[in-house]
Amino acid sequence: MDKTIGIFGGGQLGRMMAQAALPLNIQCTFFEANTDCPAGVLGQVFSSQDEQGLKQFIESADVFSLEFENTPVADVDVLTQTKTLHPPRIALATAQNRLSEKALFDELAIPVAPYRAVDSLESLKKAVAELGLPIVLKTATGGYDGKGQFVLRSEDQIDTAWAELGPAKSLVAESFVKFSREVSIIAVRGQNGEVKTWPLAENHHHNGILSHSIVPAPNSEALQPVAQDYITRLLNHLNYVGVLTLELFVTEQGLCANEMAPRVHNSGHWSIEGAVCSQFENHVRAVAGLPLGSTDVVRPTVMINIIGQHPKTEDVLALNGAHLHLYNKSERAGRKLGHITLMPVDSNELTNLCRQLAKILPEPLALTADMTI
Amino acid sequence: MDKTIGIFGGGQLGRMMAQAALPLNIQCTFFEANTDCPAGVLGQVFSSQDEQGLKQFIESADVFSLEFENTPVADVDVLTQTKTLHPPRIALATAQNRLSEKALFDELAIPVAPYRAVDSLESLKKAVAELGLPIVLKTATGGYDGKGQFVLRSEDQIDTAWAELGPAKSLVAESFVKFSREVSIIAVRGQNGEVKTWPLAENHHHNGILSHSIVPAPNSEALQPVAQDYITRLLNHLNYVGVLTLELFVTEQGLCANEMAPRVHNSGHWSIEGAVCSQFENHVRAVAGLPLGSTDVVRPTVMINIIGQHPKTEDVLALNGAHLHLYNKSERAGRKLGHITLMPVDSNELTNLCRQLAKILPEPLALTADMTI
Repeated sequence: MDKTIGIFGGGQLGRMMAQAALPLNIQCTFFEANTDCPAGVLGQVFSSQDEQGLKQFIESADVFSLEFENTPVADVDVLTQTKTLHPPRIALATAQNRLSEKALFDELAIPVAPYRAVDSLESLKKAVAELGLPIVLKTATGGYDGKGQFVLRSEDQIDTAWAELGPAKSLVAESFVKFSREVSIIAVRGQNGEVKTWPLAENHHHNGILSHSIVPAPNSEALQPVAQDYITRLLNHLNYVGVLTLELFVTEQGLCANEMAPRVHNSGHWSIEGAVCSQFENHVRAVAGLPLGSTDVVRPTVMINIIGQHPKTEDVLALNGAHLHLYNKSERAGRKLGHITLMPVDSNELTNLCRQLAKILPEPLALTADMTI
Repeated sequence: MDKTIGIFGGGQLGRMMAQAALPLNIQCTFFEANTDCPAGVLGQVFSSQDEQGLKQFIESADVFSLEFENTPVADVDVLTQTKTLHPPRIALATAQNRLSEKALFDELAIPVAPYRAVDSLESLKKAVAELGLPIVLKTATGGYDGKGQFVLRSEDQIDTAWAELGPAKSLVAESFVKFSREVSIIAVRGQNGEVKTWPLAENHHHNGILSHSIVPAPNSEALQPVAQDYITRLLNHLNYVGVLTLELFVTEQGLCANEMAPRVHNSGHWSIEGAVCSQFENHVRAVAGLPLGSTDVVRPTVMINIIGQHPKTEDVLALNGAHLHLYNKSERAGRKLGHITLMPVDSNELTNLCRQLAKILPEPLALTADMTI
């Protein structure tokens, strides 16, 4: 192998990074609590539970990246004494704290919903008074996939909300954004500063978990340059290297940033088949200091998550043109176990495939038969 | 992992099979002389040099296949006492002997060049007298990539040819086919008998080694159904499961079979990006008893081999839309080290990309700037 990339985390994102790295003769190693993780079949896993794990992990690779956005900044600080991490520490630290993140959005004139920092019952009441209701109360750190959130619809919920999330100490109260849909933009920045952007994905959630993404997001021609501009500001400001994701709401006033993820993203899995160069390969290319690949779309694509329970493999593969990506994970409610990629020729075929998929998937989530592409 | 496939051989074909198997939660193991082989990063390798190697390999997997066409039939016979091999033993044995292979082509009315079995200087002289010159003299077993062949152009070469190839004992003398080009057809047959075929590839060689393939082969609309018919006859007759390749000459009299390979093939590497479902994934699907995927072309594709010496990775990846597949092999003259896939929008872009590639590749082989797609 020509080079080794050490990756913080060893879940499905690391697995798919390593799959993309292999044909470039780039090996990956991983740092993960559970060494029996999805990425483990593709490279050595160093346990974060082991006292020597971090040291050995740092010695195992030439350059480092991450697939886990809650990678402890303290570990990164040990790493960067001797080795390089892409993306930079500041991107990770900022994304780990919703308040820092919103401050960055403000600084770069990227619209966000009105928000207030909340660190006491008092300040929560003040935020409610100033922002009005409904609001979404979120922990500043640690939440993902809808966890660590409370939707406050009436004042008599204030005490409950505080009781639930108050112990986190640092919270954000956000105005409830009226949006017609959620989209995300994914971009990659190379070590020479070159930026490439994939088309917007339209994301559909179910109980706070991504159900499916449609790419390009229908009717997004006017939104694409705006989203591209926003994410490019972030990439350049952070002197970022690798893939960055920005989740956005489509509102009557235009795009409004929700949050960023300093990594490859579930809403970019479509790019394995749907783009000339996938988010995983381009991330690896950027981290390894190689030229970036084309982010052009091969064909409009729909990515559907497999959550909680596996469908029968043979049922999925019998669907015309379906690509199956399993993560080698055991079943558990709400757990992302894999995804399916469809590249229908038109909306009719999409409707037809989704009808079939809805019968096949144990948990079809938000999948409906009236999708367009 | 849901299932394990044991593969005879651990070269780049096994490596790419295992890469295709991984997203389906199918693990591969390998049986190979050198455990430090291209496929080794993706699964356990059992050494064929080790006395217990074959036994352990047979225990390691649920179902078996091969990537090495010279897999000893004796090993297969041990295997099939307890486990199943796809493709069937008969396909392997037939492909390993040019005389058996030609007899099969004859039986199925698949045109081949006039030939004679040769097992003595006498019979060689007789063959020359009957077939005329030039002829190609080949060992019945063991040759590949142009090795074990002698082109006989005049009668005074008979003794030299016999001195060189005679020790192999069993030879074939073939009439020198006048062909305008070489093509290959690749097809897959599932356990239920379903057959799917990829479009014909036009193959260009250099010193007997494949240099590049263009798919679909230009101007092959009339040839495609004929080639499909031939390979389907073979698949059904052999009760074949998995991917089979048939190499053909395009002559004034139509298609003429050269040889078959009972495995995925270098001229099918384009299908990783260029087809909806690649030869590797469909082979894995067939061997695992899963439904076959679509063999439709995503976009016309050119696959270029990297032989002998590596180009600079960054030079290849800087080419628009280029996909690089390295096999993690050390450099050696004539050795296949990797391949590059290009999916140009038109012949102009192809010409342009090939000009750039010719500058980048240490050994551009038969690559010219006048290719069309």
